[in-house]
Amino acid sequence: MTDGKTITEKIFSEKSGSDVRAGDIVIAEIDQIALQDGTAPLAIRQVKEMSKEIRGSEITHFFVDHASPSPRKELSNDQKFIRNFAEEHSMDFNPPGEGIIHQIMVERYVKPGDLAVGADSHTCTYGGIGAFSTGMGSTDVAVAILLRKNWFRVPEVFRFNISGKFEKGVFAKDLILKIIGDLGVDGATYKAMEFDGDIHNIEVEGRLTISNMAVECGAKAGIFPSDELTKQYLAELGRADDFKEIKADANAEYEKEFYYELSDLEPMISKPHNVDNTAEVSEVEGTEIDQVFIGTCTNGRISDLRVVAKILKGRKVSKKIRLIVGPASRRIYLKAMEEGLLKTIVEAGGVVLPPGCGPCVGIHQGILADGEVCLSTQNRNFKGRMGNPEGFIYLSSPATAAASAIKGRIVDPREFL
Amino acid sequence: MTDGKTITEKIFSEKSGSDVRAGDIVIAEIDQIALQDGTAPLAIRQVKEMSKEIRGSEITHFFVDHASPSPRKELSNDQKFIRNFAEEHSMDFNPPGEGIIHQIMVERYVKPGDLAVGADSHTCTYGGIGAFSTGMGSTDVAVAILLRKNWFRVPEVFRFNISGKFEKGVFAKDLILKIIGDLGVDGATYKAMEFDGDIHNIEVEGRLTISNMAVECGAKAGIFPSDELTKQYLAELGRADDFKEIKADANAEYEKEFYYELSDLEPMISKPHNVDNTAEVSEVEGTEIDQVFIGTCTNGRISDLRVVAKILKGRKVSKKIRLIVGPASRRIYLKAMEEGLLKTIVEAGGVVLPPGCGPCVGIHQGILADGEVCLSTQNRNFKGRMGNPEGFIYLSSPATAAASAIKGRIVDPREFL
Repeated sequence: MTDGKTITEKIFSEKSGSDVRAGDIVIAEIDQIALQDGTAPLAIRQVKEMSKEIRGSEITHFFVDHASPSPRKELSNDQKFIRNFAEEHSMDFNPPGEGIIHQIMVERYVKPGDLAVGADSHTCTYGGIGAFSTGMGSTDVAVAILLRKNWFRVPEVFRFNISGKFEKGVFAKDLILKIIGDLGVDGATYKAMEFDGDIHNIEVEGRLTISNMAVECGAKAGIFPSDELTKQYLAELGRADDFKEIKADANAEYEKEFYYELSDLEPMISKPHNVDNTAEVSEVEGTEIDQVFIGTCTNGRISDLRVVAKILKGRKVSKKIRLIVGPASRRIYLKAMEEGLLKTIVEAGGVVLPPGCGPCVGIHQGILADGEVCLSTQNRNFKGRMGNPEGFIYLSSPATAAASAIKGRIVDPREFL
Repeated sequence: MTDGKTITEKIFSEKSGSDVRAGDIVIAEIDQIALQDGTAPLAIRQVKEMSKEIRGSEITHFFVDHASPSPRKELSNDQKFIRNFAEEHSMDFNPPGEGIIHQIMVERYVKPGDLAVGADSHTCTYGGIGAFSTGMGSTDVAVAILLRKNWFRVPEVFRFNISGKFEKGVFAKDLILKIIGDLGVDGATYKAMEFDGDIHNIEVEGRLTISNMAVECGAKAGIFPSDELTKQYLAELGRADDFKEIKADANAEYEKEFYYELSDLEPMISKPHNVDNTAEVSEVEGTEIDQVFIGTCTNGRISDLRVVAKILKGRKVSKKIRLIVGPASRRIYLKAMEEGLLKTIVEAGGVVLPPGCGPCVGIHQGILADGEVCLSTQNRNFKGRMGNPEGFIYLSSPATAAASAIKGRIVDPREFL
């Protein structure tokens, strides 16, 4: 064993107060805890059963984003239950309209080098700003809320060496779809994915997209070193003081290494009904679609909406398409309004949802009819994901989604940019 | 019997090609037919059962507004069924995001003097621009689609003589709530309500609010004469040529007459669980609320959103309130965005829905939890209306709703204007 550490090992060493390596089982201090309305009620019931002494109140954040505003009275009752618990314990509570859990955790709370957990599988998103963050079952999250600690097995790391830069029309989403297609949905199970190399060519919002989908090949986390771009991003959020540099040691040990040259990438698609069922857009070009959804914790950020508006500007969405767009947070919503992006989207024929998860989870706001096909920027296309097992979901970048909305079929976005 | 006619008698005389009076049973030509996603599938099935020969294709308009975008696969399948039928017969189809049936019918299709029917009880809205319009069961609407005609009993008329003008903070909604409180929910059953007098002091959008709620005291229709304001309103919609003057003869006969002095009115409220359970706001001031909903075919128009934004500007919605705002059409949505109204609403903590019916019908977008109280600008507060029979709904003007959202309890809006 060398002295060098991965980012993962560095964070767990710091948070456990000891010198740890991949494979070690540790008790670690947790910096931030996030819960959404789907899973929070389970975690709260566990907390209530286990103990009255809660040590994690000030780092616990609740978000009503999955069913927001609520489409069913049972869910409304759940939301009221969460709100009451949060108020009782002076915990942060974000009502409908604030936005998606992972976006707000990045905007406001998580810092590079943090260890964060959440009762949602896409908690891994925060790796985009150099945190180790991972989803857990509600019981484990309940323990984190009670103790502000939990046990972890320090994961082995797969290193992704990035070179070059994206060609026009190719984005971070295309890279992560390509990686998931190469590795398979269980190709990185229980590993951490760490990205390095020419990552200065990937904007922080693109990194968040990539980290968000690390779990789609089974990884616990997908982590970028923090750098000058991270610093700028936090500064724009009014959080310059939260920046901290974190990167792997040059002599860190990796279980596997992968190499991706960005300029080699093509626009990518995941076909129904698995995320790793990938193809280049050219292979599925012409596939008829009924609905396009642009948003979610994967691709509902301002840079995504800018590309979408650029493509839609002065054009109209196909008459046969429902274009649904969901900004990921109130902040993004207001910024997109200020920049005229929402106006462009609505003038083109799109529907803008309030900040939240939209139809991604299949609860409301755009459930597919039997046999309908949706092209979405979300992270999952499992059978039934969008509320109907008779529907078909393709995944792509926002650019491919917007261009396809205009044509009414899947098309290459490059001719629109 | 005098020679004079009510507006109702004039319209039915013209549309039936004979000289008719209240109480007559007539076959009349129908100018416009409107259906929404909740009732359209029933009407379409009736059409399919009855005949293959359809004469009303070009005056038939379908709207997906009640479940928009769809929260359930069964409703998505219904919407696909409607879309397919509309395409097959070259009928107008308005997908999710276009807006509410009654708003769009007024924006685009209905003219003063028209006879319009719809498979929705609030079809009476179009009386605000001088049309006789009424809701019908789906089978009768199916007959209208097939024949472009149907039978009607020409209703007797209750005349409402309006004098004076609204004081600051009092609006058309307060007038119609006052009237419904006075008459009771069955006080005008099968009658037409016609408004006259100082109606130049009621803007067209206020008239639409009033006509919209005529059915809440049982009336078939609530009609305003068309005048200079109607003409301006249509001109702003690019429909100057659609204007036609229509008013009652001076010697028309009325079954009853009522007198309302606008300057005598106070801000009004309907308390749970009936629309005629009215009170002055001062009587219920301080009632704690959980949700405020501003929108619907009653009060989701630009003048409503302007008042709301004026009240919210520079203020914040109470932390305990969910403020949900739903513009009534894509046109209003874009105008409200252009005027900065949506920005003000979102900055104050509100949630802006895409154009549509929102939570009014209790399908989605803000279902109440058990025991929760909602103050809404909609037209109905029946037990269970917003999706939970354990919820409580109060009705008010947009101004009262916005002011109450700030305070977290029902308050008089006048101190905020």
